[in-house]
Amino acid sequence: MAVDCLFCRIVSGDVAADVVAQDERVLAFRDINPQAPTHVLVIPREHVASAADLAEHHGDLLAAMFSMANGVAAADGRVETGYRLVFNVGPDAGQSVDHLHLHVLGGRRLAWPPG
Amino acid sequence: MAVDCLFCRIVSGDVAADVVAQDERVLAFRDINPQAPTHVLVIPREHVASAADLAEHHGDLLAAMFSMANGVAAADGRVETGYRLVFNVGPDAGQSVDHLHLHVLGGRRLAWPPG
Repeated sequence: MAVDCLFCRIVSGDVAADVVAQDERVLAFRDINPQAPTHVLVIPREHVASAADLAEHHGDLLAAMFSMANGVAAADGRVETGYRLVFNVGPDAGQSVDHLHLHVLGGRRLAWPPG
Repeated sequence: MAVDCLFCRIVSGDVAADVVAQDERVLAFRDINPQAPTHVLVIPREHVASAADLAEHHGDLLAAMFSMANGVAAADGRVETGYRLVFNVGPDAGQSVDHLHLHVLGGRRLAWPPG
């Protein structure tokens, strides 16, 4: 756990969140500022700062994150209509919390380009 | 290899692409219709139809894809400024090719929401 990391505090339960799925490695909760009818963040319980830090040894973690993201989308009824999965890295992408988080967006038509 | 899959044909060399990185599992090439100064697609050599099909056994593949995406962003000088990593699933997200591909976008400020 990283001191003063908002998402580590959600993992620990110190900060409340609308959790929709969780297992031993990964947690999913609704974005507090949703940009689509489905807007969920999938995060690892362990503190990984950024998708830029993802390397060969993160395979199991990534598989757990994407499995949960697909499950969350399915639970919200987005299997047929689709959804977008987004990692932001650094300032040009507007990364706002330095704890790896995968955005799952669905429930409306998503424009192109993605930002 | 899937018959009539455009990205399988890029993997096999039947269709030309501006390849920027490759290894035994993964290939990265510039998007033919770029939406940012850096716009690269990272794909598996094996045919996986969609991010919706990603499951627990895809860990090694995901790690290889994200490692290459980070390497491509670094090679384009986006480490400090950042970048966005995007998977589109299905019609609401505008998925245009049914072969798993990770968009890497950088080199300009990317707006929010991501589409």
